[in-house]
Amino acid sequence: MSTAPACLGHSRVTITPALRAAVDRLDHRSRHQAAYHFGWITAGGAPTSADSGKAVRPALALLSAEAVGAPPEVALPGAVAVELVHNFSLLHDDLMDGDEERRHRRTVWKLWGPSSAILTGDALLALAQEVLLDTGLPTAAPAARLLARTTRHLIRGQVQDLAFEQRSYVTVEECIDMAAGKTGALMSASAAIGAVLAGAPEATVDALALYGDQVGVAFQLVDDVLGIWGDPAVTGKPVHSDLRSRKKSLPVSHALNRGGPLGDELAAWLTTPGEPHEEELRRVAGLIETAGGRDWALAEAARRMALAEDALRGAELHAAARDELLALGRFVVDREV
Amino acid sequence: MSTAPACLGHSRVTITPALRAAVDRLDHRSRHQAAYHFGWITAGGAPTSADSGKAVRPALALLSAEAVGAPPEVALPGAVAVELVHNFSLLHDDLMDGDEERRHRRTVWKLWGPSSAILTGDALLALAQEVLLDTGLPTAAPAARLLARTTRHLIRGQVQDLAFEQRSYVTVEECIDMAAGKTGALMSASAAIGAVLAGAPEATVDALALYGDQVGVAFQLVDDVLGIWGDPAVTGKPVHSDLRSRKKSLPVSHALNRGGPLGDELAAWLTTPGEPHEEELRRVAGLIETAGGRDWALAEAARRMALAEDALRGAELHAAARDELLALGRFVVDREV
Repeated sequence: MSTAPACLGHSRVTITPALRAAVDRLDHRSRHQAAYHFGWITAGGAPTSADSGKAVRPALALLSAEAVGAPPEVALPGAVAVELVHNFSLLHDDLMDGDEERRHRRTVWKLWGPSSAILTGDALLALAQEVLLDTGLPTAAPAARLLARTTRHLIRGQVQDLAFEQRSYVTVEECIDMAAGKTGALMSASAAIGAVLAGAPEATVDALALYGDQVGVAFQLVDDVLGIWGDPAVTGKPVHSDLRSRKKSLPVSHALNRGGPLGDELAAWLTTPGEPHEEELRRVAGLIETAGGRDWALAEAARRMALAEDALRGAELHAAARDELLALGRFVVDREV
Repeated sequence: MSTAPACLGHSRVTITPALRAAVDRLDHRSRHQAAYHFGWITAGGAPTSADSGKAVRPALALLSAEAVGAPPEVALPGAVAVELVHNFSLLHDDLMDGDEERRHRRTVWKLWGPSSAILTGDALLALAQEVLLDTGLPTAAPAARLLARTTRHLIRGQVQDLAFEQRSYVTVEECIDMAAGKTGALMSASAAIGAVLAGAPEATVDALALYGDQVGVAFQLVDDVLGIWGDPAVTGKPVHSDLRSRKKSLPVSHALNRGGPLGDELAAWLTTPGEPHEEELRRVAGLIETAGGRDWALAEAARRMALAEDALRGAELHAAARDELLALGRFVVDREV
């Protein structure tokens, strides 16, 4: 059994040639911009090897096939497809969120304009389906169907995320539902798609999908805790980063919904215009912590990880691959909080 | 045999319930914006029946199944899917092109902002695949594969279209290739997808695909002639509309590539900044006509229609449906020029 970082490294090496071959099919401009986005070339076109991201989703997809006793090659088109869908959503989300940098490099829309990010994102989404369906496998159709449904949920999550910015109030359920769409849906599809391509029984596929879904939501809960209380040296983001944008993240929604004077104060602060001061950020972080937002989010993440691990342990899976899936989930979620 | 307008009306009536059922699966916001875009509701949400477009692509898809002896129901998910992909491209193109109106109503990005047009477009693209793959038909996978490949070509066409705006010169071949991507690809897939869903032999599918492709390019050639010389009362666009934006359309690219003093004059004019005057537009339209741009485009459209009709006549198809396909193609292309 390999460790999670070794597993991620192996997954990156396994999928990159197939991912590059897929991207090579695109028109000249979309190919160039996608290759830049994936960290393979500089903006000018020179070969490079910038950070391509952790490739968690392809690793889940490859292990998903191994866990049902199939060789990982069976899952390769699925691993490439989930990575393409993930990057379609990054290209479009960076534009919609106005993010100018990703992994310390300028984003595609910032370099080449909004139309480029729209079209290159569109191209990656269509390509994901093409990669799956080109296999000619009898299981390609259910895998492609899973991916299309997942994309619908992913879009729903982003729609909710943008809508919440315009609202003064969100419930915890709405926030969890948004995280399930934005993060859980594609993690779930990734953990299931290898088994779907391998033709595994429905109950096994469902257990793997549940695992990915719960790991995804647990990841988001921890990520949101780090977005308020994370150490900048560890997260790479400014201290209190999510509070600076007055984001209604999961710990905030919990504190908000507790009601009482703390909830009222937080609600008023969330709708206050302007850039908050450092002193103010410390005070609001303390307020959310006092209202139980931090403890709740961490307990909820732990509860979901336990559900995820129970689902995996209850399914008929090959022990070595199952253990790697468990290790990968913990590696993704358990960060220094 | 019904006439082309009756066939289009029948197609619209046939697909609308299935199209609405598909759109109903989307999240609340994407559903609302898609329903507005399709002309089913007002921006405020009241039921209406605004112009939904001609529905040429669904009509081709339904006839495509009938032409190979299958009931049109077999093609229904294909007809819905091509209409969804067409409208995905309209939502994104309207945003990229900055078009504020479509069919005399404000566009989605103009009403609800760029993010809405991006996400609702994304949602329709994913939904197209879901509608096909949900059928569970053994032919759904090749149909979905055709649609994914087609989307790649459609995006290539839009990438070229935007790139040409930045260039001072394009060849006729590049212009034709762009039209084949932007217009031909989805018309081709529409004319073939019913036969694919019906499990027709490859040669028959290829003949139908060729028909749609050539009708699409012929349509674009005629559309570009109307964009310069069309009667505003017929086209609904201002006179010389494509010249106002100094668009390198097909007749322009022909005149440009003829070389000589006319070509040089046109090349210089295309790169002149500013809004052209009415007198100037008349002079340039005359210049393109003298250089043979108009005659060439109409002859090329006629040549492609002949190729299209030969392909259809050479295939093993049911006579009544084939004749309706022929009538539909002519109806789409033969407008008052």
